Amino acid sequence: MDDRYKRALETVAKINEAGSDRIAEAMGEIAPDFHRLIMSFAYGDINSRPQLDLKSREIATIAALTAMGNARPQLEAHIIGGLNTGLTREEIVEIIMQMAVYAGVPAALNGLMAARKAFQVHDDEKKTSQPRG
Amino acid sequence: MDDRYKRALETVAKINEAGSDRIAEAMGEIAPDFHRLIMSFAYGDINSRPQLDLKSREIATIAALTAMGNARPQLEAHIIGGLNTGLTREEIVEIIMQMAVYAGVPAALNGLMAARKAFQVHDDEKKTSQPRG
Amino acid sequence: MDDRYKRALETVAKINEAGSDRIAEAMGEIAPDFHRLIMSFAYGDINSRPQLDLKSREIATIAALTAMGNARPQLEAHIIGGLNTGLTREEIVEIIMQMAVYAGVPAALNGLMAARKAFQVHDDEKKTSQPRG
Amino acid sequence: MDDRYKRALETVAKINEAGSDRIAEAMGEIAPDFHRLIMSFAYGDINSRPQLDLKSREIATIAALTAMGNARPQLEAHIIGGLNTGLTREEIVEIIMQMAVYAGVPAALNGLMAARKAFQVHDDEKKTSQPRG
Amino acid sequence: MDDRYKRALETVAKINEAGSDRIAEAMGEIAPDFHRLIMSFAYGDINSRPQLDLKSREIATIAALTAMGNARPQLEAHIIGGLNTGLTREEIVEIIMQMAVYAGVPAALNGLMAARKAFQVHDDEKKTSQPRG
Amino acid sequence: MDDRYKRALETVAKINEAGSDRIAEAMGEIAPDFHRLIMSFAYGDINSRPQLDLKSREIATIAALTAMGNARPQLEAHIIGGLNTGLTREEIVEIIMQMAVYAGVPAALNGLMAARKAFQVHDDEKKTSQPRG
Repeated sequence: MDDRYKRALETVAKINEAGSDRIAEAMGEIAPDFHRLIMSFAYGDINSRPQLDLKSREIATIAALTAMGNARPQLEAHIIGGLNTGLTREEIVEIIMQMAVYAGVPAALNGLMAARKAFQVHDDEKKTSQPRG
Repeated sequence: MDDRYKRALETVAKINEAGSDRIAEAMGEIAPDFHRLIMSFAYGDINSRPQLDLKSREIATIAALTAMGNARPQLEAHIIGGLNTGLTREEIVEIIMQMAVYAGVPAALNGLMAARKAFQVHDDEKKTSQPRG
Repeated sequence: MDDRYKRALETVAKINEAGSDRIAEAMGEIAPDFHRLIMSFAYGDINSRPQLDLKSREIATIAALTAMGNARPQLEAHIIGGLNTGLTREEIVEIIMQMAVYAGVPAALNGLMAARKAFQVHDDEKKTSQPRG
Repeated sequence: MDDRYKRALETVAKINEAGSDRIAEAMGEIAPDFHRLIMSFAYGDINSRPQLDLKSREIATIAALTAMGNARPQLEAHIIGGLNTGLTREEIVEIIMQMAVYAGVPAALNGLMAARKAFQVHDDEKKTSQPRG
Repeated sequence: MDDRYKRALETVAKINEAGSDRIAEAMGEIAPDFHRLIMSFAYGDINSRPQLDLKSREIATIAALTAMGNARPQLEAHIIGGLNTGLTREEIVEIIMQMAVYAGVPAALNGLMAARKAFQVHDDEKKTSQPRG
Repeated sequence: MDDRYKRALETVAKINEAGSDRIAEAMGEIAPDFHRLIMSFAYGDINSRPQLDLKSREIATIAALTAMGNARPQLEAHIIGGLNTGLTREEIVEIIMQMAVYAGVPAALNGLMAARKAFQVHDDEKKTSQPRG
């Protein structure tokens, strides 16, 4: 395992490991090389650079995906990534609301619907990962 | 002057007052009501909300405008806004580089060209605003 | 209740009140301030201005949302808004078809699918709101 | 000359003939068939259909091109087309302002800058086409 | 039947006739003229031109629709069109992966999900069209 | 020099080395790490993969950048890349014309203007690189 991929796995573990695993599984049948290539680039080369903290990086990603409005699954995954790197739900809602100014009201509304869904997924994951008994 | 507009002016003063003045002047001839309407919404209603600090808001705006790639003058204005609210040049470059992952390499390259221009404008403005001897 | 919000409610009542109520409900749990903020801006500040009639405004909104292609729920809501402000179904279909020229054939096809759905919703709403006697 | 192309020329003559001539000239060297193909489609097949008047069609096109934000020359040409089919400057400004709600404030600001330029071109064209003496 | 429409039908028969039939059916109720107009333009005027082979044309269309990210049904239809004009599954996956560079990783991921679905549809169509004996 | 970067340089040499050098120079002052990172990803990881030939890859990139319409410098660079990997001018014009169907007429027109400029640059570069004797 090379350094970039190792760094990628460590970085993803802090953001949204379950989300990455789901992508790996979905890509497995159709584009088996792709998951490792993009993981190494996105998390090994870029998101792991020390010049910006992960919380600030998730602000940037949530804002961009909300504004673009054509990547709903990835937006939901990074809203969970925002929670995992220290953003509060209130802050995430605020970032998405702000996109009404820069990308229009529909982009913000659809982003908030994604947040509602992602917060629910996050709640469900916490419940199932808690010790029972 | 109503509260929203007053709050808008106070918030813009912390981000990029010169940029806002240039828009007001450009809009003056053609859409005289528009500057006040959008200032009140963008800065009076949204960006002045206490739920998120201005530095984080500028991260979100720089990321979104880089990703959308069709609002160069506004991107340059908010790169200066980022500097004015506490982001370093290195952090701004990092936010824009990160967009290569989410919006593609051309969006990041064009965003970096905007940053190069905005940093130069920021240098020039500092020089002209310094007291002369 | 301030003047902007009052004006917003009056304007929305002419366009698509049921659609706005659904947004208010969906936003209620996650971003309780957002509905009033954007209603006041979108309908209190902009769409209620006397410089352009509501029918022309709905032409503009249906065209823009079809062309952008990333805001399906809002497009459906404004197709109903178009019917409520005096556009015929034939005219709405024509506006969307025209987008094939400016935003490409897929944008127009997907817009027409949204129209098919919205026309059905409009039919259903009329039936349920009719007196049964 | 087939019917579609004849109908296209008649329709363009009502919208912005000078703009179409400039495109024909620019395309002449590089894609000589393209001007006639797209003219026949855009104006012969679509914009000349009697189901919607030309003024309403220009509202739709100005709105869409402002919202997309990546077709500045075509937006300027259709702002002139709007003036030629009966929209007032005030109405055109209003359509573009409205896009702040649906596509974000930067799209509206850049659309208004296009309008400022197109209004100036329209003034200049009227001057040069007036009889002197 | 005019020449353009005849040429369109012949060209569509080589790309994805079943997909075109589904569009014709969906449009039938709401925009009965539209299918023939856009077929004549897209396949009669453009895609049938001898200057570029159909396989190269499908590369271009798959790439563009993946990059735009807001036309999923049309992307799936053209992935099948790619298979029908001589692209292998491996080549199609490669075209979509490449869009990670130019339009971002989410666009590529969502394109690959469309490919997974389209390959399945293609498998199913082949099964049902085989003689049972 | 690692393998990915070496492979990237070899691949870029076949596409558009002068264009890559200009980016390296522009990035040098502001984001010195970025050129190598994206070169390694775009050309070392993706475009050098043997599953698709370079000519087909340039068809995909020219189509995508024309359709997106917000990356003019990169579109011009890849039109030159298309010429360098075996596409004729006529084929490139055809790919761009085809985008009128999928991304709208303005996207195609602006792409053709980019091609006109890139063909001129290509002519000029050939002249200056010829031996003067």
